[in-house]
Amino acid sequence: MLTNRQFKLIARPVGLPKRTDFEFTSVPVAEPGAGEVLVKVQYISLDPAMRGWMNEGKSYIPPVKLGEVMRAGAAGRVLASKNAAFAEGDYVTGWTGVQEYSLSDGNGLVRVDPRVAPLPVYLGTLGMPGMTAYFGLLDIGKPQPGDTVVVSGAAGAVGTVVGQIAKIKGCRAIGIAGGADKCRYLTQELGFDAAIDYKSGDLKEGLKQHCPQGVNVYFDNVGGDILDTVLTRITRGARIVICGAISQYNNTAPVKGPSNYLSLLVNRASMTGMVVFDYTGRYALAAREMAGWIAEGKLKTREDIVDGFDAFPETLLRLFKGENLGKLLIRVAGD
Amino acid sequence: MLTNRQFKLIARPVGLPKRTDFEFTSVPVAEPGAGEVLVKVQYISLDPAMRGWMNEGKSYIPPVKLGEVMRAGAAGRVLASKNAAFAEGDYVTGWTGVQEYSLSDGNGLVRVDPRVAPLPVYLGTLGMPGMTAYFGLLDIGKPQPGDTVVVSGAAGAVGTVVGQIAKIKGCRAIGIAGGADKCRYLTQELGFDAAIDYKSGDLKEGLKQHCPQGVNVYFDNVGGDILDTVLTRITRGARIVICGAISQYNNTAPVKGPSNYLSLLVNRASMTGMVVFDYTGRYALAAREMAGWIAEGKLKTREDIVDGFDAFPETLLRLFKGENLGKLLIRVAGD
Repeated sequence: MLTNRQFKLIARPVGLPKRTDFEFTSVPVAEPGAGEVLVKVQYISLDPAMRGWMNEGKSYIPPVKLGEVMRAGAAGRVLASKNAAFAEGDYVTGWTGVQEYSLSDGNGLVRVDPRVAPLPVYLGTLGMPGMTAYFGLLDIGKPQPGDTVVVSGAAGAVGTVVGQIAKIKGCRAIGIAGGADKCRYLTQELGFDAAIDYKSGDLKEGLKQHCPQGVNVYFDNVGGDILDTVLTRITRGARIVICGAISQYNNTAPVKGPSNYLSLLVNRASMTGMVVFDYTGRYALAAREMAGWIAEGKLKTREDIVDGFDAFPETLLRLFKGENLGKLLIRVAGD
Repeated sequence: MLTNRQFKLIARPVGLPKRTDFEFTSVPVAEPGAGEVLVKVQYISLDPAMRGWMNEGKSYIPPVKLGEVMRAGAAGRVLASKNAAFAEGDYVTGWTGVQEYSLSDGNGLVRVDPRVAPLPVYLGTLGMPGMTAYFGLLDIGKPQPGDTVVVSGAAGAVGTVVGQIAKIKGCRAIGIAGGADKCRYLTQELGFDAAIDYKSGDLKEGLKQHCPQGVNVYFDNVGGDILDTVLTRITRGARIVICGAISQYNNTAPVKGPSNYLSLLVNRASMTGMVVFDYTGRYALAAREMAGWIAEGKLKTREDIVDGFDAFPETLLRLFKGENLGKLLIRVAGD
């Protein structure tokens, strides 16, 4: 008999999430009933947005309830199915949560083809982060050829894709990331025109140097001081995509609002929020186009895969410490 | 021989502008040379934006230089003209500055017809504030019939027009203003659906009560805490027009950024800056439409006219103390 280990959220974190905010438990794995699918989880997606889902209060989706398995996207293999839409051996992605096995009615599970792309890519570039980059940049940022596109959190799962799509669309791509290694990766491996290491050196100077015509599109994943600094360099009519604000997610003090927001007025610029779930109807089309770019070598994918289910709470913190390069995943042992 | 009294900016104000930031001088009025027009200024427009023009640094127009006559819009009568476009006795509006007479090449002067509307209206509802309201609300706010439109600084020159145009377009109009008199004026005279007195009582509660479906369009003239509070009540897809931030113009501390800006993300909403000067090519059309609304009684105009040129620095402060109701003007003595 199989055992399913789970991380349940049992406390609303204050500041950074910690192990005691979760209960690490085991339950027996049940057989699928009529219409149900049993999935062995192989990769669990760790995303900055998970921090927001742990908070109480109204947001774009309901918070994870206390006592519930922590919400997470994942990829895995169907072990057993009494649902006509799935067969044993199928590979799927879906909202299984932070557990080793998932029994569900199949709602939200999507079959994926590991011959087209490895499973981890379906959680990164061809998954939620990639869709976020694609729709946020193209639908909200509306980059024009020749535009300068700046992205923060540039070495993360969303940022790496934003910069590369900007290049595909004929823009200059400038990444903001923390650390020389990440910056080198962006320019040398991914073809960004420049990368600015905000941890060492002057972001404002870097923007002046690398965006001499100003910033036409800014894709913001981080908020805080970086958003405020980029606001001083936007062009007339610039578009700022508010995708996230990882610098603020673990604040115990109030969120730092952008004190330079009046630059929007001076520059007739806009700042627009986006939530990827609005685009589910177009995911398949976007994934097809991005898979094409991957096949042509125009879009490189990178996953930062950590072994060990048990270390979920600590591994999650890598996101908030800026320790990941590319899409952060946990590989779950077993097959 | 006529004497022209002028207020020149001689110091960059710190905080609220004060008399010593200006030099109050007199110069003789010269005869117009070839191509020139001499205007007797009758009304000087006092606008919150003037505070920004006194600051050094890049903005949507160059700052007023130290030693220059303070920039201001005005209306007056042509005393003498050697410019074929203007005849003695014509009424005009233009950027004469804070002085009693203006000698210019006629650039930027616009002839107006006092039989269509009194001169003060050409500086208010049919002037820059009215154009700001019209284009900011309609082009940026894009109100749909049935939308709830909230405007701050609602009893000012821009706000009064925003709310009334919202009503004309079939929206609910909710004003935020300081003081019971202003609020009464908005609902009883101008037909706003409700007005919230932010000085007495709870803005958040007021918004809950009067915007039960949330705020679809927010036209912001004030920034600061009011912007932050409205951000908590916006609907999905809401449009925020950043027209000004009068609460922040005289700050000696850094501008207070909207700490609730992540509400843009949750609500897929946008915040867009606007500068009325972008719409000059469409002023005439807008003015014609608004003059029609005035004639039909759908759009009421209100000016707050203060006599006395000498008191310019003190009268300007009425804007920042919230003492004006409608368009603040100085009536300049003489004819």
